[in-house]
Amino acid sequence: MAIILPMKVSEVGEFGLIKLLAELVPGDSGDHRVLAGIGDDAAAWAGDDGVVLATTDALVEGVHFTVGSPWREVGWKAVAVNLSDIAAMGGAPRYCLVALALPADAEVDHVVELYRGIAEAAGRFNVAVVGGNVTRAPGVTVTLTVIGRGQDEGILTRSGALAGEQVAVTGWLGSAAAGLRMLSAGLKLTAETEALLKRAYLLPQPRVAQGRLLVQCGVRAAIDVSDGLVADMGHICQASGTGASLEVDRVPIHPLMKAAFPGECLHLALTGGEDYELLFTAGKDNMDGIKAMLEALPGGDDCPVTVIGEITGEPGVSLFRAAGRPYRPEGQGWDHFKKGG
Amino acid sequence: MAIILPMKVSEVGEFGLIKLLAELVPGDSGDHRVLAGIGDDAAAWAGDDGVVLATTDALVEGVHFTVGSPWREVGWKAVAVNLSDIAAMGGAPRYCLVALALPADAEVDHVVELYRGIAEAAGRFNVAVVGGNVTRAPGVTVTLTVIGRGQDEGILTRSGALAGEQVAVTGWLGSAAAGLRMLSAGLKLTAETEALLKRAYLLPQPRVAQGRLLVQCGVRAAIDVSDGLVADMGHICQASGTGASLEVDRVPIHPLMKAAFPGECLHLALTGGEDYELLFTAGKDNMDGIKAMLEALPGGDDCPVTVIGEITGEPGVSLFRAAGRPYRPEGQGWDHFKKGG
Repeated sequence: MAIILPMKVSEVGEFGLIKLLAELVPGDSGDHRVLAGIGDDAAAWAGDDGVVLATTDALVEGVHFTVGSPWREVGWKAVAVNLSDIAAMGGAPRYCLVALALPADAEVDHVVELYRGIAEAAGRFNVAVVGGNVTRAPGVTVTLTVIGRGQDEGILTRSGALAGEQVAVTGWLGSAAAGLRMLSAGLKLTAETEALLKRAYLLPQPRVAQGRLLVQCGVRAAIDVSDGLVADMGHICQASGTGASLEVDRVPIHPLMKAAFPGECLHLALTGGEDYELLFTAGKDNMDGIKAMLEALPGGDDCPVTVIGEITGEPGVSLFRAAGRPYRPEGQGWDHFKKGG
Repeated sequence: MAIILPMKVSEVGEFGLIKLLAELVPGDSGDHRVLAGIGDDAAAWAGDDGVVLATTDALVEGVHFTVGSPWREVGWKAVAVNLSDIAAMGGAPRYCLVALALPADAEVDHVVELYRGIAEAAGRFNVAVVGGNVTRAPGVTVTLTVIGRGQDEGILTRSGALAGEQVAVTGWLGSAAAGLRMLSAGLKLTAETEALLKRAYLLPQPRVAQGRLLVQCGVRAAIDVSDGLVADMGHICQASGTGASLEVDRVPIHPLMKAAFPGECLHLALTGGEDYELLFTAGKDNMDGIKAMLEALPGGDDCPVTVIGEITGEPGVSLFRAAGRPYRPEGQGWDHFKKGG
């Protein structure tokens, strides 16, 4: 008889827990036509007239923001992180539900500001806020659900990567993590750098148009970089049964971030997380065309597409310097429960 | 210039807050085809091939359950309260997303039990658990989103009641509130009564089949009794621009509950909340047929349909004794933020 010792969630970690829980619940009983279930960026199923996408994500006071955080930005971010999941499936977000838990002595003004931020992000991306729930709780938690449509051409999943494909990423990595560090430590940087990093951390821009265009370009594998580049690359590899080899000197780091954090910028870009950029794979022959089309989108100057490595047949994510020397990062990305997470 | 004084959420109350917030966010921008938005049991919009329903609801540790609560029952209830919202729209629940917030030192065993409860309820009602999110938080919060289909014949809304219609309710009221009281105070009752009240509070049965049948019977107005009979009747009246007159002696109270709480049973039935029964309206001519059809459903013996009053043209909910004497309850139902809520 096996003896099972009590374990804490911190011991199995976020991804171990999700794996364990996914086995317990009824996924697809056959008539549900599930295309992507637990473990992808968003759930996807075949509706009667097209693919439906749905995702949920929570921001928790004391973990994702503090009482001192600007409420409007918390609202924006609560929407943005969910839209980013829809973007990572190549879909169009359409409807949003807001589940708000807050203490009875919360200021109405703060809640109104929070909703203004939700309204701003929802309006920007043509998402209707159609419902929700308000309940009392010891602290504030904002849990959003976004429902959208997949495109007829297909969806992006974590499991679609093929050995030999190139790996590319939108935008700049590590700026959000640098912004969090700046705000937490009260660092004084140049006004331009402060604005850039603050915006990256507080007002992430979900890559909805980019995700949709990727599908139209024939791309099949993508993820949004929320846990950190190395961790999220690992999620694609695990789901696709592949490995990946990334050249760390190619990882796109904004020049202002590099200047402000010369010693740590690469570590922040590899493991910092909360970038909400799209990491995707595509055949070498198509990559130049994809890059040109994505950069031609409105706002494309601020959102370069950078090839940073390739998908391999060897399991795991390998990191290399330009010269081919292996590179070992200090962390493996964000796990909500494990030490350092 | 108006001077706005800072206000606490407890001062505007749950329903005041929802009204305020609903005005801030983009609802239907025209191309979203929203049929029911913020303020109904679930959101509803016209999809390309039928009506989509979506609802979200959270259970919070320390508010809706305690560390000592049985985790499996918490999981069941988290699903049931959301299915009840879909039932109140006359729809069929199909897909579920689980957003789980929990401390790093939570026991894995407890989370597994919670998911077993989720799986049990989802499996019972043929709902696929297709995704979710796990995040760290100071306390446990389980936020579920359920997405379903409305019927082609139409949906049930809070705004569909007409003056002159009769008001009826499924099942027994007040048993859940009595169960909470029994468990909180550690009351000793007969084994049969304890089982009944515990089940009513911990394992509510969403009236999905009843809701669907109501639509097929031509019913247009319904709500699930979560805030308490009087409060939820008030929600229907407010949304429909009507009033209601309820005869309190007709309110269905289980004989075992009545015997255990002779002095308080009526108060619990009128204001206790968490019953998750369906309160609906229908023309006098149809009511007998509706009652017969609902009671003929599997499990119908345990779920009587009782006419308790009628919809009037006078605003507000009036309560009467059988003899026609007015009756004043002590409370008006559950508000998550106001005193006594």
